[in-house]
Amino acid sequence: MKKQALHMVKIGGNIIDAPEALASFLANFASMPGPKLLVHGGGKIATSMAADLGIQSQMIDGRRVTDTESLRIVTMVYAGWINKSIVASLQALQCNAIGLTGPDGGFVVSKKRNPVPIDYGFVGDIEHVNAAGLRNLISAGLSPVFAPITADVSGQLLNTNADTMAQALAIALGAHFDVTLTYCFEKQGVLRDPSDDTSVIPQINQANFTQLKADGIVSAGMIPKLENALKAIDEGVQTVRLCHADFVSQPDKGTLIQA
Amino acid sequence: MKKQALHMVKIGGNIIDAPEALASFLANFASMPGPKLLVHGGGKIATSMAADLGIQSQMIDGRRVTDTESLRIVTMVYAGWINKSIVASLQALQCNAIGLTGPDGGFVVSKKRNPVPIDYGFVGDIEHVNAAGLRNLISAGLSPVFAPITADVSGQLLNTNADTMAQALAIALGAHFDVTLTYCFEKQGVLRDPSDDTSVIPQINQANFTQLKADGIVSAGMIPKLENALKAIDEGVQTVRLCHADFVSQPDKGTLIQA
Repeated sequence: MKKQALHMVKIGGNIIDAPEALASFLANFASMPGPKLLVHGGGKIATSMAADLGIQSQMIDGRRVTDTESLRIVTMVYAGWINKSIVASLQALQCNAIGLTGPDGGFVVSKKRNPVPIDYGFVGDIEHVNAAGLRNLISAGLSPVFAPITADVSGQLLNTNADTMAQALAIALGAHFDVTLTYCFEKQGVLRDPSDDTSVIPQINQANFTQLKADGIVSAGMIPKLENALKAIDEGVQTVRLCHADFVSQPDKGTLIQA
Repeated sequence: MKKQALHMVKIGGNIIDAPEALASFLANFASMPGPKLLVHGGGKIATSMAADLGIQSQMIDGRRVTDTESLRIVTMVYAGWINKSIVASLQALQCNAIGLTGPDGGFVVSKKRNPVPIDYGFVGDIEHVNAAGLRNLISAGLSPVFAPITADVSGQLLNTNADTMAQALAIALGAHFDVTLTYCFEKQGVLRDPSDDTSVIPQINQANFTQLKADGIVSAGMIPKLENALKAIDEGVQTVRLCHADFVSQPDKGTLIQA
């Protein structure tokens, strides 16, 4: 039986930090017909707020270490200010959004990352998604909006990577829906020539990905993103799409990764 | 037809600011059988965070004025940190909590308070509760946990009084459930003698309230609380209860206000 389509979208800090770009994105997202779900990342507000409070962000290999104070700040900023601002804007656009984090409804359960070899602090890796519970919300006409905060089974809140969260949600919901997961980023798609914004590769699958890698066409930074996308396809996601936020509501724009 | 019972509980800053009292309250709340809903207030974290950020809280007649910066802080603290900490703790206690604010699911819509005669800033008065949507969540086995933040139809977030929010939710849900709304506070109930903590008045209704007022037994500060409770009863709430948080799961403790 053909499953119902579900459009999942992930946006990051580049949109969240730009009020006009965010407003335009939310209008486009709200206009998309059918069931949909949004995952948002953080942005610079948490970093600037930590600085204002005199809390220094500790970094290891370019990754933030989440200590007790940082966890409190990211929870406040991501799950409080950013999440509720987005939800209120979407409601005003007639999109029946509901803001969520991992512990809400037990929808996403994570586990604190092993502190060996590197202790990133209160960072969570996803262990379980309650896809049936989420499906019920979506089937009731609600559009979940997830902030990248989860909790473990003991109730400890944990900072979680938004890209990974979107992927885990997409894979789990793939059992119930034909999922398209769109990662919005600053480019038009995966480019054949990084200096030419029109050189979007329209489709990538396992076969041509191997060739694109062999030919040195996809950049080093793009390879893990595409590998993750192909893994999601392998695990039941219909389509992963990389495109500019401006084109979120145009399903043929950007690069489509499919089986 | 007899409606299903729904236990609604409101807690305030005195519990939220005391980690041990909060943990004990949440264990009791989680142990309560059947459908339930929690509304929480703020506490001192928002005030101390504003101070740490160098933001002065402006007060008029003892009431906080919510300017743009204060709105951001209360949204972060109430809807982010406090709400998600409570939800994660309840989930760890096997209570299927879901954290919400007004805009989530369009459950509570408010309107910015008229700035004349006194401009309290971004403060919202509740206009509408989407009781049918909330009933669906509750019937699916979820326990809503509300932070006192709402939004108007334009998507403007607004700071909202938690007592008023609990009352509006109770009245609206009274159409679908036999609602008991328990306000937890630091006393054992409404006291006949303020110096005697055992002098709890077990039941108040419109008739004996008039007598208690005439006899000067209920304090000036308690009168508006009881008037609001009787108004809620008039509008379809089964029972309003005032009791100490320690006894939330013992339905006969405290003062019961009924028709």
